[in-house]
Amino acid sequence: MSENGRRQGEIPVGIDSEGDRIEFDSMGEVRVPADRYWGAQTARSLEHFDIGEDRMPIELCRAYGYVKQASANVNAREGLFCDDKRDAIVQACEELIAGELDDHFPLRVWQTGSGTQTNMNVNEVIANRAIQLLGGELGSQKPVAPNDDVNKSQSSNDSFVAAMHLAALGSVDSRLIPEIASLADLIEKKAESWMDVAKIGRTHLQDAVPLSVGQEWSAWAEALRHTCFDIEKAREGLMEIALGGTAVGTGLNAPDGFAEEVASEIARMTRLPIRTAPNKFYAQATLDPFLRLSAALRGLSVALIKIANDVRWLASGPRCGIGELKLPQNEPGSSIMPGKVNPTQSEALLMVAMQVIGHDTANAMAGSWGNLQLNAMRPVIAANVLHSIRILADGCASFRTNAIEGTELDRERIGEHLDRSLMLVTALVPEIGYMDAAHIAEAAAKNGSTLREEAIASGKVSEEEYDRIVQPHTMIGDGLAGA
Amino acid sequence: MSENGRRQGEIPVGIDSEGDRIEFDSMGEVRVPADRYWGAQTARSLEHFDIGEDRMPIELCRAYGYVKQASANVNAREGLFCDDKRDAIVQACEELIAGELDDHFPLRVWQTGSGTQTNMNVNEVIANRAIQLLGGELGSQKPVAPNDDVNKSQSSNDSFVAAMHLAALGSVDSRLIPEIASLADLIEKKAESWMDVAKIGRTHLQDAVPLSVGQEWSAWAEALRHTCFDIEKAREGLMEIALGGTAVGTGLNAPDGFAEEVASEIARMTRLPIRTAPNKFYAQATLDPFLRLSAALRGLSVALIKIANDVRWLASGPRCGIGELKLPQNEPGSSIMPGKVNPTQSEALLMVAMQVIGHDTANAMAGSWGNLQLNAMRPVIAANVLHSIRILADGCASFRTNAIEGTELDRERIGEHLDRSLMLVTALVPEIGYMDAAHIAEAAAKNGSTLREEAIASGKVSEEEYDRIVQPHTMIGDGLAGA
Amino acid sequence: MSENGRRQGEIPVGIDSEGDRIEFDSMGEVRVPADRYWGAQTARSLEHFDIGEDRMPIELCRAYGYVKQASANVNAREGLFCDDKRDAIVQACEELIAGELDDHFPLRVWQTGSGTQTNMNVNEVIANRAIQLLGGELGSQKPVAPNDDVNKSQSSNDSFVAAMHLAALGSVDSRLIPEIASLADLIEKKAESWMDVAKIGRTHLQDAVPLSVGQEWSAWAEALRHTCFDIEKAREGLMEIALGGTAVGTGLNAPDGFAEEVASEIARMTRLPIRTAPNKFYAQATLDPFLRLSAALRGLSVALIKIANDVRWLASGPRCGIGELKLPQNEPGSSIMPGKVNPTQSEALLMVAMQVIGHDTANAMAGSWGNLQLNAMRPVIAANVLHSIRILADGCASFRTNAIEGTELDRERIGEHLDRSLMLVTALVPEIGYMDAAHIAEAAAKNGSTLREEAIASGKVSEEEYDRIVQPHTMIGDGLAGA
Amino acid sequence: MSENGRRQGEIPVGIDSEGDRIEFDSMGEVRVPADRYWGAQTARSLEHFDIGEDRMPIELCRAYGYVKQASANVNAREGLFCDDKRDAIVQACEELIAGELDDHFPLRVWQTGSGTQTNMNVNEVIANRAIQLLGGELGSQKPVAPNDDVNKSQSSNDSFVAAMHLAALGSVDSRLIPEIASLADLIEKKAESWMDVAKIGRTHLQDAVPLSVGQEWSAWAEALRHTCFDIEKAREGLMEIALGGTAVGTGLNAPDGFAEEVASEIARMTRLPIRTAPNKFYAQATLDPFLRLSAALRGLSVALIKIANDVRWLASGPRCGIGELKLPQNEPGSSIMPGKVNPTQSEALLMVAMQVIGHDTANAMAGSWGNLQLNAMRPVIAANVLHSIRILADGCASFRTNAIEGTELDRERIGEHLDRSLMLVTALVPEIGYMDAAHIAEAAAKNGSTLREEAIASGKVSEEEYDRIVQPHTMIGDGLAGA
Repeated sequence: MSENGRRQGEIPVGIDSEGDRIEFDSMGEVRVPADRYWGAQTARSLEHFDIGEDRMPIELCRAYGYVKQASANVNAREGLFCDDKRDAIVQACEELIAGELDDHFPLRVWQTGSGTQTNMNVNEVIANRAIQLLGGELGSQKPVAPNDDVNKSQSSNDSFVAAMHLAALGSVDSRLIPEIASLADLIEKKAESWMDVAKIGRTHLQDAVPLSVGQEWSAWAEALRHTCFDIEKAREGLMEIALGGTAVGTGLNAPDGFAEEVASEIARMTRLPIRTAPNKFYAQATLDPFLRLSAALRGLSVALIKIANDVRWLASGPRCGIGELKLPQNEPGSSIMPGKVNPTQSEALLMVAMQVIGHDTANAMAGSWGNLQLNAMRPVIAANVLHSIRILADGCASFRTNAIEGTELDRERIGEHLDRSLMLVTALVPEIGYMDAAHIAEAAAKNGSTLREEAIASGKVSEEEYDRIVQPHTMIGDGLAGA
Repeated sequence: MSENGRRQGEIPVGIDSEGDRIEFDSMGEVRVPADRYWGAQTARSLEHFDIGEDRMPIELCRAYGYVKQASANVNAREGLFCDDKRDAIVQACEELIAGELDDHFPLRVWQTGSGTQTNMNVNEVIANRAIQLLGGELGSQKPVAPNDDVNKSQSSNDSFVAAMHLAALGSVDSRLIPEIASLADLIEKKAESWMDVAKIGRTHLQDAVPLSVGQEWSAWAEALRHTCFDIEKAREGLMEIALGGTAVGTGLNAPDGFAEEVASEIARMTRLPIRTAPNKFYAQATLDPFLRLSAALRGLSVALIKIANDVRWLASGPRCGIGELKLPQNEPGSSIMPGKVNPTQSEALLMVAMQVIGHDTANAMAGSWGNLQLNAMRPVIAANVLHSIRILADGCASFRTNAIEGTELDRERIGEHLDRSLMLVTALVPEIGYMDAAHIAEAAAKNGSTLREEAIASGKVSEEEYDRIVQPHTMIGDGLAGA
Repeated sequence: MSENGRRQGEIPVGIDSEGDRIEFDSMGEVRVPADRYWGAQTARSLEHFDIGEDRMPIELCRAYGYVKQASANVNAREGLFCDDKRDAIVQACEELIAGELDDHFPLRVWQTGSGTQTNMNVNEVIANRAIQLLGGELGSQKPVAPNDDVNKSQSSNDSFVAAMHLAALGSVDSRLIPEIASLADLIEKKAESWMDVAKIGRTHLQDAVPLSVGQEWSAWAEALRHTCFDIEKAREGLMEIALGGTAVGTGLNAPDGFAEEVASEIARMTRLPIRTAPNKFYAQATLDPFLRLSAALRGLSVALIKIANDVRWLASGPRCGIGELKLPQNEPGSSIMPGKVNPTQSEALLMVAMQVIGHDTANAMAGSWGNLQLNAMRPVIAANVLHSIRILADGCASFRTNAIEGTELDRERIGEHLDRSLMLVTALVPEIGYMDAAHIAEAAAKNGSTLREEAIASGKVSEEEYDRIVQPHTMIGDGLAGA
Repeated sequence: MSENGRRQGEIPVGIDSEGDRIEFDSMGEVRVPADRYWGAQTARSLEHFDIGEDRMPIELCRAYGYVKQASANVNAREGLFCDDKRDAIVQACEELIAGELDDHFPLRVWQTGSGTQTNMNVNEVIANRAIQLLGGELGSQKPVAPNDDVNKSQSSNDSFVAAMHLAALGSVDSRLIPEIASLADLIEKKAESWMDVAKIGRTHLQDAVPLSVGQEWSAWAEALRHTCFDIEKAREGLMEIALGGTAVGTGLNAPDGFAEEVASEIARMTRLPIRTAPNKFYAQATLDPFLRLSAALRGLSVALIKIANDVRWLASGPRCGIGELKLPQNEPGSSIMPGKVNPTQSEALLMVAMQVIGHDTANAMAGSWGNLQLNAMRPVIAANVLHSIRILADGCASFRTNAIEGTELDRERIGEHLDRSLMLVTALVPEIGYMDAAHIAEAAAKNGSTLREEAIASGKVSEEEYDRIVQPHTMIGDGLAGA
């Protein structure tokens, strides 16, 4: 049942016809497959934009349902069309939002830069579905016309960016933020449980002073928390929508107050604090809010690269690398080398992150190509951001469940490393000074001896002093606060 | 019939079973859908790498058919397995190459960075299809085993890059180079037909001295010719394949001479000058040849951006822009502004080009992440390059047929612009010097007068001199050679 | 006089010596120029890192003055050295901050990735200057040693990022934010003064419905306001500093409470809300806060590209382009074409913006190359961000004073465009529908007639209706709120 | 003595004046410093483009000397000015090429996008120096005028790109290619000397089958050889110069045959196969040849990243990492940790490479911003490419002399790793199959035992068989050909 409680009869989604149907637009007639709701302009786009296989993201088409439904409600309230027409449009929009019309959006990303063809695809599908619900003839544009009714008070120029915002909000809220949080939570949990396991630190890839495993892992969780916060800030920018600006931002052909009302309507439907953009000229001429989100996704990617790379190096070996972490073995690692375990989850996540960074480069370029009243590079940035969100969310989930969850410490190896390192000498510096400490470390390195042996041999510290000062567990201090 | 003339019986492609089947690998048993040829490792990958919807490009899986077929032939020749086994593998490879097994490669791009899981997917599908042909039991690995037979003398580390090279060569040769050439040909043809149409030149977007429409268009064709040449050079680098290096480049577990023989075999099958890479350690540890191709594709993108952007600006207007070109009207341009014609093909091509540049950034990053004996960022670069080739080829075709083909000149407007420009004054410089010429132009600009009026008023040239010197058609000179 | 009121004697900055001086470090002795304060490690770096001419930004070296001064104050307070030593160090730091020691920082950006060599350069210069103030022998490390005194309780790993943050804060606050604001203010002022000048809008570069010049310009100011806000948010992240974490984040060899105290001390000196980073492991292992700033600078660049590009296209012509804006003529535009005026300020700003975007790519790469306890790609990101801030601030200032300030409208041309456009037909849509309106526009386009002629000829509207509905000034509505 | 043998008197370079001098251009008079050769347009640019401190690369200004000298020779030969004028200009050009006029080019990169201001800077300096040589009055433009004489038959639009090409050729030939070759030579020499040192291979960072140190290093040399070849190919494209196209490519105001003659003249002077670009419209409207070079420099950067990163990981430790390489200790590594040796040369080279990749992104963007007859984003790409060449050449030299030259093997550690690895099991696969081999490796991993123990315990091979088959030195094979 529709939210208006006036669902039109019981006509199920779908057209039980074969062959073609005639549709028309201002340029004339076109044939479309009889079992599809789309119309003439969709058909023209399919013919003229046969480029690759990348479809306009279905999340965006579904999000358009909110735009069209809210517009219909406001248009009806303004007396611009009758309740029956509104109800039919609303029902079609609800079906669109629910994914029931997914098979009717065949257009490519590589189309007009305003997204007009996808807007018309949406208009045509909703119009024909509404006509069907109202007992009209498909393709007749009566009693519901794609331009004059479904698109009423709108332009692609304001509605497409609104749909972009809503689609991204949906994906960020339902998938990305929860997945980042879950990954950070798990890393934090592990960090806490290993907060007292002392290990050698490494700077410049070289042995350094010790820290704890938990301290090391805490940095990863902290990175995720920060990037998640950035994404949340970028998400805020998506709450302002251009709808109501129509063609160039002036709102020509939309009734007074349309912008505010339609934003309220969408806020009500989505339960998000959606509001009308204070400057429509800006909101339509740029893609800045999306580029902000893209930059935040890049930030997440950079953090994930650091984490995934650290994990795979800490797990390198098992016998000829660092080998402090043991990753779960999910699959045979090699087609030729039996028994090999590879950090495949890290690799997949690294590639996901690089792809997102690549998308972000394309997005920055697209974002800088606005001209005058329109940035006509919208579909590429819409597709890239939605794709990035998807693979980042899935990538975090996969990494969490298939790598981090099952990761264990090789405590023996961690202990060996800690015992052998020369950099514990640093603890002597406040006592004996940098120069003497350096000479002790160098002697140990040269002679293959232990630090303790050389320190005592140097005469700069006694055995008691050495044993009191050079204690890894003291050196790491206490939790996040450190020493 | 197989090229060996020994096609196995008449068992069509496909498994007529429902439910599940047990498959196994070194880690144990796994259930797979009974109607699919893949085995345990593919199933493990599907479970552990459920990231997005980006499948490993099917062109790469098909190209693997050449690798496996050639390897089987050489292995059999070396006596490593019998002719029956070879024949069954060869038939399965031929079916794979022909696209008959496309439905059996479900893995994602986001998997192990060596491409091992796709290599195993290929090994498993070929093994089971060969088992089927030989009357064995699917999943039994008898008489054909994925690792020990189909993968014999190979590793993912050498075979996956070989398949990448072959897939890219196929796409570049069959689609991309022909489409660039067709677009350049058409632009050149139009350039020739308009070689004598004088028009105002523009530098810094400002009116400059004249050139001809044909000269302007010739620059676009020249740009395409050069980028095509770059792609051809990058293509050459793909002829060297790593096959024979096995796990780390030493060729361990491959028979002597395998590398050379398998390259010859692939050369014979593909009729391309494929040869073995002289340094397998390099060929497996880097993705340089693919990155070279990626850079060449970026070069094409930059050229296409210039062309598509020039076209849309020259067609801007129709009444309040430059308006020298008239683009074909393929669709209603606006959902709100009736009668609008937009440069939609330019926009689509611009977005394609930006996407390729974004992919290239990801590729450069991936290319720089090789470690020691392997660059484990292969799938992302493989997918991006093959995707770029596809959308560039399709984009060129669409732009050619839907934009350039029907583009016409607005000769009236071109003439008006030429007549009104002040920069024809430049022709007077050799006669009267830069300073005086500048003052004439400025006077005309200030007074809204014509150049001729101000030139004569200045007393620096007579009417006869002016009319002799300031002739646009003389100023543009003759064809590409110019004035 | 020092802030401590204890300025050491009257020894001016500078060393009145010629030839060389012996300096030493833990590896032995090195000769340095006798008139420079630096020591052995600076000399070693000069020898081993002779790469290009890019010096470590002097802003960063100066900002290190705050780090060293604050550390000396806290160290003295903790009783780690005496007041005389503290006072000498403090005076040297004040001289460093004031730019009096600028000539003593010769090191390149291309050095150790932790910035250790620049930290040692700072330590050595301060130590020798303090020695000079205290009457000691340069190079003796007595009574002030670079490592044991000036670097006390610090590591490069915590202090260098702190100096990066402080340097960026200084540049952002003193130059960038004010310049963005000034540019936005001026654009807004011009937008307001032209808020009622109706002009043709353009979407897809094609004539669209009208808006006002002020509305068009308001979008640019809005873009700048948003990017400025992003920069301010990124700036906040720089307030958290790693100082106190020492080598790996544990704070080994720093006294208890050092991190908090030193942050307070810097806050006091800079009057900024500087505070200690809650997780030092994160703060030292990543460059995330700097990468956030880099992304915000990229956002500004994208906005500037849009603005500078719109300006140059709106000023294109003067006779064969759009020509609605008249830019100030600051210089002869061409070496060959007399009288040419080019949008050179736009071009310079576009190139600045592209450079910043390029820097940002390098920064993202550097940011993703952290390993374990340290991101050792610091100098490149430090240099790029500081350089970006500088050229963006200067670029905004130059564009404002040399382009925007003197830009005027060509009202005649603006009026002509408005009169000739066909897209005013859009206003008829609510009255006569999209289809009929489209046919009217197409007839006018085809016949070269006016919209009014064709509208009336179509019989769909009367003369009175047309004149009532199709009024540009009504169509643009009222200020930012639009129609 | 000039190449013409007609050096003008003995007037040394330099102007012995103080205060200001009046210069003029078509816009009027301007004051310039009396001791500088530059004129009015340089002064205007200094005033209007006060952006950052990045000067137009001096290599480019010097390379302009060839352009102006060759043009003067051809112009004189064509009778466009007399021999005295030519000789004075030629002498000034020779001084410019020799670097004697370096102090007279103060302009920024961030200027007009055509490079006109630098062209005029060159014209003005040469004109005034020639005037000085001929006994005229500085600033009088007599007997040598910047536009009418020094710039005769040229435009910035053709001459600036020509100077870009010549500057890049000079730097590539004199510095970059030799440095890449030297680095590759040294790596190859070391590879040869270590060709028989067996070591464990690593794929996915995990222990793999063995190879030799020499084989590992050979991959690095091969990568450098390939990228050098790419740079050489890109260098070829710079041989075609636009000179002769003047303002828009038509060659207006240049005498017939000027393009060919001036190219020959430059070829003679530089001893390079310089030739005139066959299509000037393309040569001036794009920056494609420079972008090709930029892409090749990026390719080199990617190779250097791989090498520098491999080196630092192989040298990681010394006790808790891989530790197979020992790098020379050039400086104390840490300001806090005594005795630390860090891979600082690798880090510097990594940062150089990232900077070049960032520059390349800016270059691709600039390269895609050509409009109609001119790409007006030249200075940024010119500066970035020349800067990249410089830091790459210096970076290679520094890495070679300060890192690779002194790198030694830790043979003991290499041997330990080889002995402990489990992946030697791969050699058993042809004998016992993948599955059984996998189970042996897994047993050894689980039990902490040796491969030999588990292999024999498995009953699949005898001791004799094991010792015959599992021999690292056999497994690595022979040199580059491998096993």
